[in-house]
Amino acid sequence: MDAILEGGHEIGHHHYLHEHANEMPAAEERSWFERSLDVIVQATGRRPAGYRAATYRFSRNTLDILIDAGIRYDASLFGDDVPYVLANDRGSIVELPSHYGLDDWPHFQFSRDFQTLMPIKSAAEAHRVFREEFDAAWEYGGLWVSVWHPFLSGRLARAREMRTLIRYMHEKGDVWFATLEDIAAHVRHLEESGSWTPRRDRLPYYPGPIPELGEAEPGNVEPL
Amino acid sequence: MDAILEGGHEIGHHHYLHEHANEMPAAEERSWFERSLDVIVQATGRRPAGYRAATYRFSRNTLDILIDAGIRYDASLFGDDVPYVLANDRGSIVELPSHYGLDDWPHFQFSRDFQTLMPIKSAAEAHRVFREEFDAAWEYGGLWVSVWHPFLSGRLARAREMRTLIRYMHEKGDVWFATLEDIAAHVRHLEESGSWTPRRDRLPYYPGPIPELGEAEPGNVEPL
Amino acid sequence: MDAILEGGHEIGHHHYLHEHANEMPAAEERSWFERSLDVIVQATGRRPAGYRAATYRFSRNTLDILIDAGIRYDASLFGDDVPYVLANDRGSIVELPSHYGLDDWPHFQFSRDFQTLMPIKSAAEAHRVFREEFDAAWEYGGLWVSVWHPFLSGRLARAREMRTLIRYMHEKGDVWFATLEDIAAHVRHLEESGSWTPRRDRLPYYPGPIPELGEAEPGNVEPL
Amino acid sequence: MDAILEGGHEIGHHHYLHEHANEMPAAEERSWFERSLDVIVQATGRRPAGYRAATYRFSRNTLDILIDAGIRYDASLFGDDVPYVLANDRGSIVELPSHYGLDDWPHFQFSRDFQTLMPIKSAAEAHRVFREEFDAAWEYGGLWVSVWHPFLSGRLARAREMRTLIRYMHEKGDVWFATLEDIAAHVRHLEESGSWTPRRDRLPYYPGPIPELGEAEPGNVEPL
Repeated sequence: MDAILEGGHEIGHHHYLHEHANEMPAAEERSWFERSLDVIVQATGRRPAGYRAATYRFSRNTLDILIDAGIRYDASLFGDDVPYVLANDRGSIVELPSHYGLDDWPHFQFSRDFQTLMPIKSAAEAHRVFREEFDAAWEYGGLWVSVWHPFLSGRLARAREMRTLIRYMHEKGDVWFATLEDIAAHVRHLEESGSWTPRRDRLPYYPGPIPELGEAEPGNVEPL
Repeated sequence: MDAILEGGHEIGHHHYLHEHANEMPAAEERSWFERSLDVIVQATGRRPAGYRAATYRFSRNTLDILIDAGIRYDASLFGDDVPYVLANDRGSIVELPSHYGLDDWPHFQFSRDFQTLMPIKSAAEAHRVFREEFDAAWEYGGLWVSVWHPFLSGRLARAREMRTLIRYMHEKGDVWFATLEDIAAHVRHLEESGSWTPRRDRLPYYPGPIPELGEAEPGNVEPL
Repeated sequence: MDAILEGGHEIGHHHYLHEHANEMPAAEERSWFERSLDVIVQATGRRPAGYRAATYRFSRNTLDILIDAGIRYDASLFGDDVPYVLANDRGSIVELPSHYGLDDWPHFQFSRDFQTLMPIKSAAEAHRVFREEFDAAWEYGGLWVSVWHPFLSGRLARAREMRTLIRYMHEKGDVWFATLEDIAAHVRHLEESGSWTPRRDRLPYYPGPIPELGEAEPGNVEPL
Repeated sequence: MDAILEGGHEIGHHHYLHEHANEMPAAEERSWFERSLDVIVQATGRRPAGYRAATYRFSRNTLDILIDAGIRYDASLFGDDVPYVLANDRGSIVELPSHYGLDDWPHFQFSRDFQTLMPIKSAAEAHRVFREEFDAAWEYGGLWVSVWHPFLSGRLARAREMRTLIRYMHEKGDVWFATLEDIAAHVRHLEESGSWTPRRDRLPYYPGPIPELGEAEPGNVEPL
């Protein structure tokens, strides 16, 4: 962790035990969230700026929890190719959208325990996915966020491809390499200065329970 | 929806909540079907011409329901490379057959909740599947129908490949770009004018219950 | 079926309802086997020469059933790259081994109901698997047996690749294109004339029950 | 087995019935381990030097069992690209780390019974994974350990690719081809001579039970 911080990188909130936020009541999600928050503050000396839900499973309560904790951005949703804003009655945060194809998991993970019994790609094949999305983001102007797990992308041939890709990005130029925290701050700055208005996604999409889907489970939606 | 309609596109029937038609009794399938029909009429001002079953799961009751509702074509089955006709005692509709390889789902979808834990392809690799079927359809004279989900094919590199593919089709020439509604009408026109007789698939394949498979569940087959 | 027979092809035994032979007691497997045998005799006027187990699931009772029915070859096992002989106390049959990579199923099948939620390959990519095994069989002298389901390989781009592959084989030369029935007869002829002795696999591998695996289920092994 | 031994190869410990070590209590794991040990000693005349857990599932008790049995290396974990040492209160062994992408299983295995319903790769495609990791290990100086199952990699086109890959390695040069036993002995020699100090991974990572994960099951951790 010291090396990460010394290298100028950012440490975000990604759960305590990789628990799935959408499979527990609001109070339990909040309790795990705060426990992890404490650990990060102890270890880094500051509160994290951002959050990504484990396996990208943002729950119906997650936005409340993030806003209450002063989290400034989320990176769990797949709703756009550029930043946008998630808002509800409590406030709003910046959404820095992800893309499952830019996560190394679907390319390299093979595990009976995770039920991911999938052919493992060559690093070269996986990086064709990463690179084509980078090229498209470069062409149209977009956000490119990848997820590299040390136990997957940290093997030799894969790490070598990461270096090759980063060099390619540098050579192409006109790319801003930044932490998600800096990107979120930039979005807010643009919004405040009026130079760009991000799209605003208001939650919940449906103001009441959806009769066809049954009532929400008791205790699973917190009052404001 | 306004943009879709203004662009000259067609809005078809694809369920109310993506419910699986083959996992419910006939009356329940019919009820959901009609509920969705009402919504489409409200939103578009007209009844839809066509239908595709969620996850292509056409039930033993679907054809009855489609014919009763005046639906003119179905696009759920994989039974040919050219249009054909589905008929039973109530009447008939045009079948515009699909191809799972031309759906973006098996190429791009990765989800624990859908049990689709599969390696995600590059857009270029997925489009090789789309293009080779287009080339073969072009060579032999066939129908090419693709399914592009906005949350899958709508990401930047994938959308760019869609544009490349459509341009390729235009440059190749001798291709009729049409809505499924227009294709179905054309098939009926050819059939009525006697210039082409589509193959006729008569349902059900077996006139009675199949003893080895057990009796049909009570209530699951409607009388005519 | 008439077209298949007129074309000089062979109709083999592949179950009545694609039932899984290894998931039922011996008597049930035998009963379904005979029912299917009757249908084939009615339809073709002769007993089938060969058998392939559904999903290649040869049971501990299958060899007995095949020998009792006078079946001359099996094509369910993956035990070699050239024909061999399966023998037990009742007699023997020729084994014409298969290869799952030469079946179109793992390349093209996508179905929630079969739990085969896998990326669908391009026909070109699938045929690279078929062709490399053909090339290796050609180089070393081996048996090449592919499985092409009409609803999978029968789509346009895939069928076109089949034609390309067969042409490639013809152009390469020194290939015997034959029905499995003719290949099995040839193996028996070589064996009888003493010009080649196929490997002999004697079943069961273990003469008694394996204590660590528990006793065989009552009724699941027939006396001779 | 005779041919393997005559060829100068090594026979290691890989379970009695491929039982999963992490799904049983310590005493049961130990009992199966010793049963397999006896068979190997009977068959080869000596105790095996090394061990690999079935499906790489090293349990919380495995290290104790290996140290007690005098096993000198393990090859079940994925914790590095070069050898390291696994230590606990009883002693230590050399870890020769594996890589799932270098196992032929995720590339060639297709089985309903193993729930590995995955597209089967061409041998050429699988070997691109093997070769890129070899090239990276060659460039940076690393350990390259592959797993080739006879029933998977033993088919003709795949075996031909194995030969091609081994020739490629020979031609590239500066590669030490060795049994894992010899590599483990070399690591210990370097460590003892002080010329290289392997990384030391001390187990268990957590000295007590982790409250959030519940107590360890009674009987599942042996006293020293």
